[in-house]
Amino acid sequence: MSTSNTAPGDADPAVREELARLRDSIDNIDAAVVHMLAERFKCTQQVGRLKALHRLPPADPGREARQIARLRALAEDARLDPAFAEKFLNFIIAEVIRHHERIADDTVNGATP
Amino acid sequence: MSTSNTAPGDADPAVREELARLRDSIDNIDAAVVHMLAERFKCTQQVGRLKALHRLPPADPGREARQIARLRALAEDARLDPAFAEKFLNFIIAEVIRHHERIADDTVNGATP
Repeated sequence: MSTSNTAPGDADPAVREELARLRDSIDNIDAAVVHMLAERFKCTQQVGRLKALHRLPPADPGREARQIARLRALAEDARLDPAFAEKFLNFIIAEVIRHHERIADDTVNGATP
Repeated sequence: MSTSNTAPGDADPAVREELARLRDSIDNIDAAVVHMLAERFKCTQQVGRLKALHRLPPADPGREARQIARLRALAEDARLDPAFAEKFLNFIIAEVIRHHERIADDTVNGATP
């Protein structure tokens, strides 16, 4: 083993095989997560339409605080960094609020679904 | 229906019920995603240890480009914004690289698993 970095192709076959096995699992998980997120956005689009139609505010700080507390607890049980789980939820919520504001604008402008 | 925003508690019961139903689905999906991500980080931690042990570089731009292209295609099939899927993967990869650099540092300093 040298102290300088080597390219993955230079690693011995057993290492490359193990790396390929782990990457296959990562790719499977990513496909599952993408499909879960697609389903999640279908739900939040419906929430957005409902809120726009009934003039409810796009953001809901109380709901978000409960979601964050719950996800942090779930993350701890699953041995995932709770700080990362919170960052992840904030990342998703930012996207959802962007969608909701767009839906609200479209509704006010009479252009909605 | 008024033109000013109302709090969710003020909405009529059918609307509140529909909102609660959608939020239950969102919470179920979030729990599933958190567990998927916990499993994903277990895989990437193993990848990180393997790379550190064999002095492979933490980042792998070729692999990342393939992952992004694949996830964008999966997102399109699932009717998820491909730009969001790419942003999401970059968000996860940034976290993974942070972990790998930490594992590599620990390995160099002889403090590794």
